[in-house]
Amino acid sequence: MQPVTGSGELSSGGSAPGLTADHPGIDELFALLAYGEVAAFYRLTEEARMSPHLSGRISMARMAAAEMGHFELLRDALERRGVDVVPAMSRYASALENYHRLTTPSTWLEALVKTYVGDALAADFYLEIADVLPPEIAEVVRGVLAETGHSQFVVDEVRAAVAASEMQRSRLALWSRRLLGEAITQAQYVLADQDDLVDLVLASTGGLGQMAGFFERLQQTHADRMAELGLS
Amino acid sequence: MQPVTGSGELSSGGSAPGLTADHPGIDELFALLAYGEVAAFYRLTEEARMSPHLSGRISMARMAAAEMGHFELLRDALERRGVDVVPAMSRYASALENYHRLTTPSTWLEALVKTYVGDALAADFYLEIADVLPPEIAEVVRGVLAETGHSQFVVDEVRAAVAASEMQRSRLALWSRRLLGEAITQAQYVLADQDDLVDLVLASTGGLGQMAGFFERLQQTHADRMAELGLS
Repeated sequence: MQPVTGSGELSSGGSAPGLTADHPGIDELFALLAYGEVAAFYRLTEEARMSPHLSGRISMARMAAAEMGHFELLRDALERRGVDVVPAMSRYASALENYHRLTTPSTWLEALVKTYVGDALAADFYLEIADVLPPEIAEVVRGVLAETGHSQFVVDEVRAAVAASEMQRSRLALWSRRLLGEAITQAQYVLADQDDLVDLVLASTGGLGQMAGFFERLQQTHADRMAELGLS
Repeated sequence: MQPVTGSGELSSGGSAPGLTADHPGIDELFALLAYGEVAAFYRLTEEARMSPHLSGRISMARMAAAEMGHFELLRDALERRGVDVVPAMSRYASALENYHRLTTPSTWLEALVKTYVGDALAADFYLEIADVLPPEIAEVVRGVLAETGHSQFVVDEVRAAVAASEMQRSRLALWSRRLLGEAITQAQYVLADQDDLVDLVLASTGGLGQMAGFFERLQQTHADRMAELGLS
C-alpha cells in the first residue's frame, strides 16, 4: 500500500469546531469501537495459541480480558444513549473481520507485533477524533483506549528477538508496515460506508483538505512504535 | 462412569479440624485453581465460536474475561505466599487439559451446558474445601468462585431449547452426566498425584471414610443444576 501523501500540512485537531453530544456519528463511533473490542478479544485468544510458553498465553489472556472491560464501557455508554449495542455494532463486522483475516500472523512474534501495533493504531485514530468530541463523550473514548498496562511483555520479547536476528528485524518491520496498510485500507472502507462517521472525522481533522495530515500523523506515531519495538 | 457410593453418611466439612495458613496444600490449591481459570478462559473462547449469534459470543467473552479476573486474585495470593504462579500451576496442566479435551462439545448447546455445569462443579468442589481453610485463605477461594453473574443467558437458552425438543433434553442430560464423570475422574488423578492436596481434602471431608459423602454431595448439587437447566 502506498503511503497517503497530500498537502503535508499538519492540522491540529483541537482547533476544529466541536460537535454536540447528539451527533449520530457518536453512536457509530461507539458501535465501531465495541465491535473492535470483541473482534480483538477473539483474535488475541486465537493468536495466543502460537505462544511457545504458558506465560505468553496468560499475558495475552489478560490483554483480551481488558478488551472486554472496554466493551462493557461502550455498551453502557450506548445504552445511556438509547442504542442497543449488538445490532449497532454488527454493521462493522465485515471491515474488522477483514482486517484480522488479512493480517493473520504466522508466528508468535508476528502475533505480538500485531497486538501492539494494531491496538496502538486504533488508539491513535480514535484519540484524534476524541479531540473534537464533547467532553463526556471524549472521556468514554479515552477510557476505552487507556493503556491496559499489559503490553510491556510484548516490547521486551520483540526487542530481544530482533536484537538477536537481523532477519527477524526486517521481517517484522515489513509485517508492521503491512499492518498499517491494512488498517488504513479498512478504515477507508468503513468511512466510505458511514456518512455520520465521516462527519466526525472531518470535524476532527478540520476538513477534507487536512485529511492527509491526519493520516501522516498516524504514520508518524506508527514509526515511533516501530522504534520502541526495535524495528527501525 | 459409576456413581461413587459408600457409607452414605453425610459429613459436615465444617466439623473437621481447621488447617493453618502455612499448609503446603494451600499453595497447591491456589495453583490448581489458577490453571483452571486460564484453561477455562481458552476453552470458553474456543467453544464460543460455535455460537450461532454475536450476543452468545459476547456473553462467553465476558464470562472468559471474568475468569482472568479470578486468575489475578490467585496470582496475587500466591505472590503474597512467595510462590511464582506459572511454574506452580504448570503441574496441573495435564489433568485440566485432559478434562477439556475429553469434554469437547459438538454443539453450541453442549458448550453452554459445559460452561454452566463445569464451573458449578468446580465451585462445589473448592467450596467444600474452603470450609476448613483459615478465614483469609477461604476468602480468596470464595472470591475466585463468586458467581460471575453472566450465566443467566445459559439457563435461558438451554431451557428454551430443551422445552422445544425432547431429543435435545435427553441428549444434554446425558452430556451433563458425562461432564460430572470426567470431572470426578480428573479430580481423582490430581489427588493421586498431590499428597498435600489430599491432606486438604481429607481435612475438609473429615477423613477417608467420609470421602464418599463428599462425592455424594457433589452429585446432589449437580442434580440441582441439571434441574435448573430443565434437564431432569
